[in-house]
This record gives sequence, C-alpha cells and structure tokens, in this order.
Amino acid sequence: MTELDYARITRTLVDVAMGRTCADLVIRDGRWVCVQSGEIIPDTHIAIKEGRIAYVGPDASHTIGEETHIIDAVGCYLVPGLLDGHVHVESGMLTVTEFVRAVIQHGTTGMFIDPHEIANVFGLKGVKLMVDEAAVQPIHVWVQMPSCVPSAPGFETSGASIGPEEVAEAMAWEGIIGLGEMMNFPGVFLGDEEVHAEMGISRLADKVIGGHYSSPDLGLPFHGYVAGGVEDEHEGTGLEDAVARVRQGMKPMLRLASAWNDVAVQLRAITELGLDPRHFILCTDDIHAETLVMEGHMDRAVREAISRGLKPITAIQMATINTAEHFRVARDIGMIAPGRYADILLVSDLTEFAVDQVIAKGVVAVEDGHLLVDLPSFSYPQWATNSVVLRQDLSAEDFRLPTSSIGTVTANVIGAIENQVPTRHIKMEIPVEDGEVRVDMGRDLAKIALVERHKGTGKVQVGLVQGFGFDKRCAIGSTVAHDSHHMILVGTDEADMAMVANEIDRMEGGQVVVREGKVIGHVNLPIAGLMSNERAGVVAEKAASVLRGFEECGCRLTNPNMHLSFLALVVIPELRISDLGLVDVTKFEFIPILEE
Amino acid sequence: MTELDYARITRTLVDVAMGRTCADLVIRDGRWVCVQSGEIIPDTHIAIKEGRIAYVGPDASHTIGEETHIIDAVGCYLVPGLLDGHVHVESGMLTVTEFVRAVIQHGTTGMFIDPHEIANVFGLKGVKLMVDEAAVQPIHVWVQMPSCVPSAPGFETSGASIGPEEVAEAMAWEGIIGLGEMMNFPGVFLGDEEVHAEMGISRLADKVIGGHYSSPDLGLPFHGYVAGGVEDEHEGTGLEDAVARVRQGMKPMLRLASAWNDVAVQLRAITELGLDPRHFILCTDDIHAETLVMEGHMDRAVREAISRGLKPITAIQMATINTAEHFRVARDIGMIAPGRYADILLVSDLTEFAVDQVIAKGVVAVEDGHLLVDLPSFSYPQWATNSVVLRQDLSAEDFRLPTSSIGTVTANVIGAIENQVPTRHIKMEIPVEDGEVRVDMGRDLAKIALVERHKGTGKVQVGLVQGFGFDKRCAIGSTVAHDSHHMILVGTDEADMAMVANEIDRMEGGQVVVREGKVIGHVNLPIAGLMSNERAGVVAEKAASVLRGFEECGCRLTNPNMHLSFLALVVIPELRISDLGLVDVTKFEFIPILEE
Repeated sequence: MTELDYARITRTLVDVAMGRTCADLVIRDGRWVCVQSGEIIPDTHIAIKEGRIAYVGPDASHTIGEETHIIDAVGCYLVPGLLDGHVHVESGMLTVTEFVRAVIQHGTTGMFIDPHEIANVFGLKGVKLMVDEAAVQPIHVWVQMPSCVPSAPGFETSGASIGPEEVAEAMAWEGIIGLGEMMNFPGVFLGDEEVHAEMGISRLADKVIGGHYSSPDLGLPFHGYVAGGVEDEHEGTGLEDAVARVRQGMKPMLRLASAWNDVAVQLRAITELGLDPRHFILCTDDIHAETLVMEGHMDRAVREAISRGLKPITAIQMATINTAEHFRVARDIGMIAPGRYADILLVSDLTEFAVDQVIAKGVVAVEDGHLLVDLPSFSYPQWATNSVVLRQDLSAEDFRLPTSSIGTVTANVIGAIENQVPTRHIKMEIPVEDGEVRVDMGRDLAKIALVERHKGTGKVQVGLVQGFGFDKRCAIGSTVAHDSHHMILVGTDEADMAMVANEIDRMEGGQVVVREGKVIGHVNLPIAGLMSNERAGVVAEKAASVLRGFEECGCRLTNPNMHLSFLALVVIPELRISDLGLVDVTKFEFIPILEE
Repeated sequence: MTELDYARITRTLVDVAMGRTCADLVIRDGRWVCVQSGEIIPDTHIAIKEGRIAYVGPDASHTIGEETHIIDAVGCYLVPGLLDGHVHVESGMLTVTEFVRAVIQHGTTGMFIDPHEIANVFGLKGVKLMVDEAAVQPIHVWVQMPSCVPSAPGFETSGASIGPEEVAEAMAWEGIIGLGEMMNFPGVFLGDEEVHAEMGISRLADKVIGGHYSSPDLGLPFHGYVAGGVEDEHEGTGLEDAVARVRQGMKPMLRLASAWNDVAVQLRAITELGLDPRHFILCTDDIHAETLVMEGHMDRAVREAISRGLKPITAIQMATINTAEHFRVARDIGMIAPGRYADILLVSDLTEFAVDQVIAKGVVAVEDGHLLVDLPSFSYPQWATNSVVLRQDLSAEDFRLPTSSIGTVTANVIGAIENQVPTRHIKMEIPVEDGEVRVDMGRDLAKIALVERHKGTGKVQVGLVQGFGFDKRCAIGSTVAHDSHHMILVGTDEADMAMVANEIDRMEGGQVVVREGKVIGHVNLPIAGLMSNERAGVVAEKAASVLRGFEECGCRLTNPNMHLSFLALVVIPELRISDLGLVDVTKFEFIPILEE
C-alpha cells in the first residue's frame, strides 16, 4: 500500500462517518463489547466501508443508502473478531486455507502463525509458501519467522536450517510479524551468538520476539532468558509461571491446546491474585483438526477463561485487544473502533460465547454455521507435495537389528511415559536369536525406526521402544516427527514396518497403521508430509482412523500419536532416536542401541 | 544501532542476569512498582548494566562485583521514570536541554515533544534542530513532526510551511516518533487531501498520529475526525470528552498544563464510570518555566491524578506504561523490567509522590535535589539565534492609524475575554483627531500591532484592542505570537511601542514591557524568538518581570501574556490580527480596521 492508497481509505472512511458517502454495511442496535474502554454499550450502530469500520455510535442512519446492506443485531453482542496469539497450523494437519475454513466458523478473524514444522522440512522457502498462502485469506494471518531450525544441529540430518541470514531475509517480507518462539532457551541464557543475532535482527526490524521457555526453573536461567529480550511466552503451566512472566515484562500467552490446558491454572493470577490482565493473551499453540471441528478454537479458549471465573469482557480482551497491542497492530485489528478492519462477531450470549455470525474484513463470512465467503484455491508447487524422498522401497530386512553378541545383549531402550513428553532411558537384557534382536510383546518391547526422508540418504536407524503396549503384529508410521519430521515408525513386525514406510512414501507423507499386513488406518499429508489440503472434518476423520488403529494394535496410551511424533525430538530428555543414532539427551551424546 | 550492537547488548544483559558479569549498579530492597502487573512487590533488587536493566527480582547479589555501585532503597518505592505524552518545550521558553534540566529533577525520564512553535518559525530545519538536541539528552526525548504549519495558509506571511513532502522527509529521521497534533480537524473531517496525505505518510512509516480536536462537538465532525486515523487527543476537557475518545479507540491524553487542568474532570471516567484505564495518558502540553520550577512536571500530574481519587499505581501507569505502549516503545521504556532502560525513581511516599532520587539511563541523575549528570552544551547555529528580521528600526510613526474620515469612524476592535482564548468582535465609534485614530484609556482602547519579523517585509499592521485595562503610557511586545510567531505588540503609546519593537529586535526575540519610555520587564528569547538557553529559574524570573510589567501598566487579566500571544492566532474566532490585516475568523475573511 502507498501513502496515497492509505489517504484514499481514510478519506473514504471520513466521508462515510460524515454521511457524504454510503456505507457498504450497517449493523444496527447491538451491544458493543468495547474492549478499549472495558464497557458494554447498548444500542450501538456500526457503519462499514471497504472492509473497515467508518463509524461506531448511537445512530448510523446517516450512512445508509440504497446499496447499504443492513444487519439487525437486536439482542446481540458485537464482539471484536478473535485472535490466536500463537499457533502452528501444521498441528491441525491442515493447510492455512483449511485451518482458516475451520476456525472462521468459530469467530477467529486473526492468527499469528509460526510455521515451525514446515520450516524444518523446507526451510525459508517453506516459510515463504505459508506467508503467500496467509496473504490471500479472508482473515488476517500474520507469520512469525521460525527461529530454531533444526532444534539440535549435529544430532540429525535436518531437512533445512535457519540462521541469522535467513531471519534477516524474512524480516523484509510483508506478512512477517515477528520472530517465532525462541525455543533454544539455553542459547539465550548462555549468550549464544547466533541466537542473539537472530533476536537482534528481529528487534532492529521492529518485530516482536516470541518466546518458549519450557522449564519449570524460575531462577537465574529464567531471568537470563528474559534479559535476552524475548517478549512473550506460552510454555508456562503453573500460577507462578504466569506471575513471573508478566512481572518480568513478558506477555504470558495462556495456551488451550488440544492436549494441554494451561489457561485454567494460570488465570488465577488474575482471578485470585488480582494482577492487571492487560498483558495476558490467549493462544492455542497446537490444536488438532478434531478439536477445531468438535470444540472450537479461540471461542473455546474464551469460554474456558470465562468458566474459570474471568469476566467475559476480560476474557475477550485476552483474545482481541491484548493480542493486537502485543503485536503492535491495534490500529488495524483487536477492537471495534473507526479505522480498524470490520472484524465483528454477533454473539447472543456472552458467557456461553456461541458465535452466531462472523463478519471478517467487512464481509459477512459466517451465518447460521454456513460459510459465505470463498476461500482461495491456493496451489502448492510440485516440490511442496513431494517431500518424502526415500532412496528405495524398504523391506523387512531394513528393520532388522543384527548383533554379533551371543546369548543376550544389553540394549538401550526408549521408554514412553504416559502423558509426558520426556522419555525414560531403559537398559534391558535381551536374548539374541539367529544373530539379531527381536521384538518381545510379552515385555512390551517393540521396534522403533527413524527413516531419513529429506535427502534420500537411505539411512534407516532401528532401535527399541517400550510402552506402546502392542499385542499384535503391527506397525505405525508418521512423517510428523518433531522437529525434523523424518519418517518415524514403531512396530512389532518388520514386514509391516516396511509396508507402512512404503505406503507413506507412496502417499508423499502422512500416517499409516498396518495390522497383520493390512492398512487399517491412515491420514495422507502430502504437503511437506505434514498437512492435508482436505477439509478439517475429513482430516479429523482420517486422523481418528489412525488413533483407532493404535487401539486395535493394543496401544492404550492417551494421545499415542503425539507420543510417536515426539520420539525423535532430540532436545527433550532422556532418550530419542534420530537418523544418525540413539541420542542420550541428558548428555547430548550418541549411545549405541546395543552394547556389544 | 546495528543488529550486532543490539545482540551485544542483550548478551551483556544476560551475562549480568546470570551472574557471569558484574552489574554497574544494583538497587537493593526497594518496593517495585510493577506497572505491568499492577502490583507493588516488596524487597526487590534491580541490577543495571550499560544503562539498561539486566535483572529484577528478589536477590541481585550474584550480580555485584567490586566495581558495582550499590543503592539501598529500603523503605522506598521503585517507580518507572515518568513520561510526558505530549509537550511543546517552547511553551516553557526553554531549550530542550534546559527543559530537561528542569524536569529531570521531577522524575521525568522521557518526553514526546512537538516542536510546533519553532516549526512555524524555521520549518523543517527548526524541527531538525530540535531532533538533534533531543538526541543528546540524558533522558529520552522523542519528537513528533508538526503537521499544521502554518495554521491558516493565506491569512498571514508564515515563517515556514510544512506539507506532505516535509513530513515524508522527517519520517525517515531517527528520533521522530510520530506526526504532531493534527489540529486542522476540519481538514480531517472534510477530507482535505494534503491533511490525509500527511497522515497516510505517517501511518505507512509506522508512526503514531497525534490529535488535537478542540471542539466540544461530539457529533459527526468528531466521528469524522476519528475515522481519519488519529490515535490520541489532548484537547478534551469534559467527562464526556474522555469517554468518547477512549470508546472510539483514541487515547485520551489528560492535560495538566500551567493554565489548564483537564485531568480532574476527565479522570472521573475511571473513578466514577469505571472505564479501563489502560488507554488513558497524562501530559502537560504547555507548561511554563515557573510551573516547572515551583510545582513540577509529570510528578505534579501524577499527584493531581492521585488527589482526584485514582489509585497511585493507576496514576503512575498513566505516566509510564500507557504512554510507552501508545508510542510502541515499551520494549525500551515505561516499566521496570529486564531489557528496558534503567529509568527508575526512588519515591518515599507514593501518594505525596515526591521524587527523592532519579536514575536515568542507568545513571544516578538526581539525588537530594542535586543534578549529578552533565547536560550537553548544545550549540545553536547562527540562523537559529537571528530570527528577528525587521526591515528597519521602527518609530512612533509606524504605529499610527491614519484615516481620511472626519469626525468619527467605525472601528473593528478585538475584544479580549478574561480567561478565554476566543476573542470578541467589537464595533466601536471612535473620534478622529488630526487625521488619525488614537488610543483611549478611558474606554480601555489600546493599539495592537503585528510586525512581520520572518522575511523583513517591513509590514506593520496596526489595529485596536479592548480589554487589557492599561492605565498608563506603555507598550508590551512579544515574538511568542501563535502560531506564526511574528512580533505582536499592544500599547497605549506609539513611541513606547516602537521602543519595544526595537528592543525585541536587538534581543533577537523575546518579550519586553516599556512604561513611559522605560523598560520595566523583559525576557530575552534569542532562539527562534521563542526560547532562552538560560536556566528555567532565570527564565521564570524574567518571565515574571513581564507579568509584573503588565500589572504595573494597569492590566488585571489573568495570564495576560497568553492573551497577548494568542491575539494573532488566526484560526480561533472571532477576530485576530495578522501581518496581512484583520481577520474575521468566523468567516475566514479580512475586514478593515476602520470602516472608512
């Protein structure tokens, strides 16, 4: 936009406000949820022109002409469109467009997305792809430039890498709002030069520096992290976490993900301790397609906050004006006021917070549950949908664990822990049969494999895992495997594992469950091996087939899918697998699978 | 600053926070006024390095080394340095440096100055001069680029003019924070192209657009003004003004000037109506040297807000974090938190709000009323101190009002109204003596003259004024004459008027009172004819001599000096004088002094 474009817009808005030009849309007689003053003001009219609000006040009749569309909002609250302060759309297994389709129904009109996952697969060009798709949406989608790719250099073959140079390049792109969560928190508090360079570049580009401090330690490392200049943080879980963050000048982002509720407890900083809520922000971070379809998005977070005792207007502030001011875009979004985009929800009950109608950028986008706007048909380049690169088809042989030991061998086994991201490092004596180590369902011992899939190195790293509870011949695989997103597999049968790998290769990414030689569940994720461009409902159903598959194979873990996708996350203790070997994350060193 | 510089700073701060490097300064055991959380937290330590805060928490002993200076703050509140959201330093008749010297004592560590007055004299180069002087201060001084120079094109010979081109040039300067108050509010709501272009340029440069809507009309013109994109406003006086501004998404700046208190009433929006205070900001706008010396600056405004029933922490938020967030510089100032500049006040009583000690950019700047930092010796270029350009010395003859009428003549006389900026248009029958119209102290009729002083046109416009109450032969003149700041004179004796004019010319600007041929009061303002580079106390004393001079000449008006300086303000009704003639501001047309 040029200065002249902007001046033309403001002159048009003034013309409407003054009654010299007709509004495109007028909303009449609603209850204005005025987040900027903290009031609810009855009998309010809003006049909208060219997507923005020209007038808010007691009477917009002077802006109504023959062409003006009118909405009667009697009995309804007029709420600013909701904002998600931090979210990875890849977690929904959806493209930006399909994520938008799912969330706009729930009143989300703005998101700050961090394409950390695709960045791990494609690097800068993956981020740019998301920026381009974000730019054409009917709601506001800003992108945070991922800061930590790969998460553990040297411990895996990464799909891509991002450093200060890439950050500098991205900061010049329209649509980049800030630096994505700085999860290398030791790098911050230990003074790593590259980490601080990325933050310095972002700061000088006047972008917001996102945080991620996933440690309970609120001592010196925390203070060191804050001193580095990080501006928000969404990994807090306890009351003391929220208090510490806001006191230190960081914005606590309270997360209501699919699998985590960090809102309920942290909110007590406001409801019980009486802290000023202005710096508290709601976000989802990781949210599955099924949650979006069944429960909602930011409306769900607002409901949760209200149900925990927050005044509705305060909860709404945490998903509107607080977020907009944090990202310094409150001139455009986050409140119902002149000059801002007309992102307005009609809500009949503020406490129930069911969104009846959604106006996004001045257009009636959702009414009675029907989507009334066209979403872009974004086309993905060929490279984006061909990200699974195996050197050749795999066979059962590739998943053997041969050993020269005789009798028994000591194995280093990854132990999955129910409901926890950390794993346990188990040492186990295992009998050697025919020169190899085999699975043992009786001891819940399965195989795990990490198949390199970015560069076609042909590397298949086989190891052992305990805790999935498989009681049948089976295998399950996924190209969602944080953070480098190779192909990860677990299973009790090498032929099934090979079948899964080859099937995923054929689908160009996704998740597959094979039981006794038959595919019993799958979700295809052809974009970067992470996302589907099918609709949320379809993806949710397919993802459910994978979860059912886990069960049918005997797995009783809650969220087994997340367990699987985290087993290659070589930054979280104790033991993880990468394509380069087994990593003892307590010491950051490779250790052998079998101590021969 | 480069990215590397910034990364070096953050790494240093982290080193201090972690205890790897010693702090320069540690403040121990104070009560942290944590404006970001709304709490007061006892027993807090702050570690400071290279001017910024590295650590805030319960124990900074790990940051203390042999070189670390320690301040014990037992019993004291630790308050973020105060910010003035909008001020014209020229109103204090002081340079930026001397203004800073006066206000730092009162705990001001940041100001957003609008050099509107010098811009009217020198245009862009005057603004640049202020930007350069602002940049070398020990506190933060940001400059708003004046938007409305001259205020009434065509109705006076202006010293300079500013339009979109000049605004665009200034927006690229470091130190420019926004567009100065858009006082051409009709231009905004009537859709003037140049006005909107200036705002569009500022917006695209990501700068804050300052407002000035000096009308009580909260109807369509107000809504039109808001729709233009103005972000703050400081001309509100009534409760309804504050409420309307905050609801419409503008930040109400509540003004405690020397001559106006717009805080007391508007604060009731918070104390009585319960509005969210987050968008309310305190400012001074126009404040005299004497007020600064005798009463204070932002500390005075905070005290006023507290005395009107605001909680101390809320009042402090209105002069710290609210202001910083408005101008989008809260990463640098406005709260006591890591990464921010160490602008910290030690205050023993929060309600009395007497500032005991001032730390500015990490340096102890004021202790026990003593200034401990050196202020810059800024040198003004020759052109800046030679702004009074008369074609020749003036004589009594220049102040005659000749007429060809015989007997009497009808005169259009400016009527000063006690305590009001607007004037009255008086029609008066006046006897003609010896072919001219003379003053008549019996009817309180004095002469007024506007002497062009920017371009040496030689123009002296003589008129008549009523309301000053002079009862002696006298004359008073000033080069502070809003907005174009020519030389304005009032008097009852033409020879005295000439003497005043020549004396002001000799001083290169200022104010002079002559009674019966003798100078009885003066203040010399050699910089642009607006500012002295003497200290606030000296200037206050000299300014007081002018006020005493008014009294000694019989004038009983409150603030006669302000009345004088506003008589040429050709944008406020009803009648004003310019170098081009007498202006009927109700119709924006010239009318004759004498209806011959």
